Amino acid sequence: MAEIQNKSIISRDENFAEWYTSIVKKADLVDYSSTKGSMIIRPYGYAIWENIQSILDKEFKRLGHENIQMPMFIPESLLNLEKDHVEGFAPEVAWVTHGGSEPLEERMCVRPTSEVLFCEHYKKIIKSYRDLPKLYNQWCTIVRWEKTTRPFLRTREILWQEGHTMHATREEAMAETLRMIKVYEDFQKNYLALPVIVGEKTDKEKFAGAQKTYTVEAMMYDGVALQNGTSHYFGTDFAKAFGIEFLNKDNKLETPHQTSWGVTTRMIGSIIMTHSDDLGLVLPPKIAPIKIVIIPIGKENEIVEETIKSLKTRFDEREITCKVDESDKSPGFKFAEAEVKGYPIRIEIGPRDLENNEVTLVRRDTLEKIKVGVDVVPDECEKLLDIIQKDMYDKALKRRDTMLYFAKDYDEFKEIATTKSGFIKINWCGEVACEDKIKDDLGLKSRCIPMDEHDPDGPCAVCGKDAKCQIYFGKQY
Amino acid sequence: MAEIQNKSIISRDENFAEWYTSIVKKADLVDYSSTKGSMIIRPYGYAIWENIQSILDKEFKRLGHENIQMPMFIPESLLNLEKDHVEGFAPEVAWVTHGGSEPLEERMCVRPTSEVLFCEHYKKIIKSYRDLPKLYNQWCTIVRWEKTTRPFLRTREILWQEGHTMHATREEAMAETLRMIKVYEDFQKNYLALPVIVGEKTDKEKFAGAQKTYTVEAMMYDGVALQNGTSHYFGTDFAKAFGIEFLNKDNKLETPHQTSWGVTTRMIGSIIMTHSDDLGLVLPPKIAPIKIVIIPIGKENEIVEETIKSLKTRFDEREITCKVDESDKSPGFKFAEAEVKGYPIRIEIGPRDLENNEVTLVRRDTLEKIKVGVDVVPDECEKLLDIIQKDMYDKALKRRDTMLYFAKDYDEFKEIATTKSGFIKINWCGEVACEDKIKDDLGLKSRCIPMDEHDPDGPCAVCGKDAKCQIYFGKQY
Repeated sequence: MAEIQNKSIISRDENFAEWYTSIVKKADLVDYSSTKGSMIIRPYGYAIWENIQSILDKEFKRLGHENIQMPMFIPESLLNLEKDHVEGFAPEVAWVTHGGSEPLEERMCVRPTSEVLFCEHYKKIIKSYRDLPKLYNQWCTIVRWEKTTRPFLRTREILWQEGHTMHATREEAMAETLRMIKVYEDFQKNYLALPVIVGEKTDKEKFAGAQKTYTVEAMMYDGVALQNGTSHYFGTDFAKAFGIEFLNKDNKLETPHQTSWGVTTRMIGSIIMTHSDDLGLVLPPKIAPIKIVIIPIGKENEIVEETIKSLKTRFDEREITCKVDESDKSPGFKFAEAEVKGYPIRIEIGPRDLENNEVTLVRRDTLEKIKVGVDVVPDECEKLLDIIQKDMYDKALKRRDTMLYFAKDYDEFKEIATTKSGFIKINWCGEVACEDKIKDDLGLKSRCIPMDEHDPDGPCAVCGKDAKCQIYFGKQY
Repeated sequence: MAEIQNKSIISRDENFAEWYTSIVKKADLVDYSSTKGSMIIRPYGYAIWENIQSILDKEFKRLGHENIQMPMFIPESLLNLEKDHVEGFAPEVAWVTHGGSEPLEERMCVRPTSEVLFCEHYKKIIKSYRDLPKLYNQWCTIVRWEKTTRPFLRTREILWQEGHTMHATREEAMAETLRMIKVYEDFQKNYLALPVIVGEKTDKEKFAGAQKTYTVEAMMYDGVALQNGTSHYFGTDFAKAFGIEFLNKDNKLETPHQTSWGVTTRMIGSIIMTHSDDLGLVLPPKIAPIKIVIIPIGKENEIVEETIKSLKTRFDEREITCKVDESDKSPGFKFAEAEVKGYPIRIEIGPRDLENNEVTLVRRDTLEKIKVGVDVVPDECEKLLDIIQKDMYDKALKRRDTMLYFAKDYDEFKEIATTKSGFIKINWCGEVACEDKIKDDLGLKSRCIPMDEHDPDGPCAVCGKDAKCQIYFGKQY
């Protein structure tokens, strides 16, 4: 039955791009509008984002961050204040030139990121070491005028959070940069079940204006990378450009050190491209808006209805989101829909099972069917949700590990790059020339210098000179 | 002491506008940036908005609404689809004309409101009576290119929520329109302690494109009105313009009926202008980010410190947000700061009081000092927070009622309008000519035809003809 309903989803092994587009539409995550390059995030998709926001926001606040709301527009002269930054962003911003029928005196862009706005504000409110650190975060929409767009992965409007912090010392700012990339790593591993690789970006790939950029790199089912969150250390460059200074404990003026860090709705894309299958979405329980769907089997039946009602109450008491599908569709149709939507557990309740005082649980991730006694359903489901969460991570990790390669020299690199999908690790001399060569020859960009296992164990795979570190390369979305 | 610190806040009776601006700055609610007409909502101000969002969002969801996220841009041709609507909004939208260095094929405005985007989407997803009602809501930022701006009251960027719903029948849509204005009324009365008047807008004052607009009208300390939330019934006008139709149970095509409703960060302005005083902010406990501040008195003292620590723990356990001011400022300075910030209760803990096993509670709303035993502090504070909430409402209601007037004829109306501040109720014939006359002669706009007590008890106060209803007039922000 399920196959019949979902057959319009093309196989992910056949055409991954089309499969992805089909999933986001069929699972009611997004829709398109006449605003090109933007997406409508539909209620089911937005509920995933709300879960992500709620978990991360709590964590940010626990760590001492405060939320703030900056203007969405940046006057051109303000954007121009930090040279590297404006060079990075000016080509891809949307310009507001008119208010009503009148041309503006100075055009303004819709924020592509808000460093300059935060700096202008920090300049006003940071006077003394007592004002530091400043740990601010903002949940908002940013705009980058992308030519080619795909839902969640690359859109002109992006929902995200951007943390911007100021610290008295380089050490504190670096600690914050690393603390926040760790928050992203833990969140993606523990909630999104994504086996991410964390590391440092090369000078070539780092954020416009940053001294150091750390990244969380996820690998999709097709071996292609998705940069899933970044944390930047700016040193004092922005602060100097904006004239931000504070009086230290010795009453001397110093320039503070700055960080910023952000994650976006792109993470929803990475959940889909990592876990979902040809039947539809597969959502990690901890992030699923609806964790359990109950589907009655057979004709109207009082015992079935009463069992459902009592189970629903018990799930509500435990705050486990549970939907009862009471529509007039056939059970087969409902099963298929539950699979498209990726509800982690489906409970089938029919009179035959109930005669044995049993119901059937179906895991969305494995499609395994498990019969359990009615009395223990909430306990069993709670356990099963934990198991599904863990198994999804383990499965993704196992698959990803089969797509991690090591190339000791350039021939091996070329051989892997042209025949396999995944990330290729090499020893690297640290020169941009070697990075450029790989990009030009094979179209692969550097992903990151991993935090762990980055000591070289041989010469640079490209030029053969002494290597400084190990580094991952890979295709990217 | 407090007076010394806060004396830079001008008296609200002396210059209300300047007092307001001073409060929003001094209480760290907002700051300005080089983005003219927009404001930075600082952490303390944003925390009030987060509290508002959290309460309303829960209520919307309880009533069956789902959150969604629409694009922030509207192509000009889409905005033009509903005639009355575009006439109302086109003069005050911000236009994006360039993406990067390239001019757009069609310019787009930043959404001033999202009716047209919702309609375009509803056209796609509403096919059958089974798809109705659709109860969507969006939390987002909108832009209206205002010439004169004031923090929270009138800004170019506005944080708000906009509900947009579609229904099978006029009755259902009207019920939704009224249900949501009631949600706003209850919220503003019960959480913001605002004694609001709810009623219907005249044809002249209703929302561009709406058939009916209901409004929540709050009266500020100076007698001037603040429109604090609206709910609109659109009939089928938008739906027809967009070609939205559904198959009813008899398999016939029908046009659905539509509503929209919204409240904004303006509500924060109304809290300030209703409750605050010459010492600073006064926040209703239910919406205050920090409900209690504890201030130690005297030199460092072990018993004081232990008492504070234990109280803090007990407040945390009850989830009552409590801040301990351990800074190296003087107690007097801390008292003044607590008054500026409007924390509902201040607890002063000093060794002398502790000898009697007592501490001093100070109510922010009345400045009354109350000595209570250490053991009962959390209980007493919980009770006191409820009392403050209720007293703030009662006080605001009492004051507002002294500024409600009734004018039986135009001479009386002119007399009141030129000598008093507040709302003036009259019997009204329902003709726009009489409404216009008041506007032209005296600069007062109609506020609303109140839901209660709207039956006329005499002829129209302006033209002397038969009256149809009673209506309020007043100056507005």
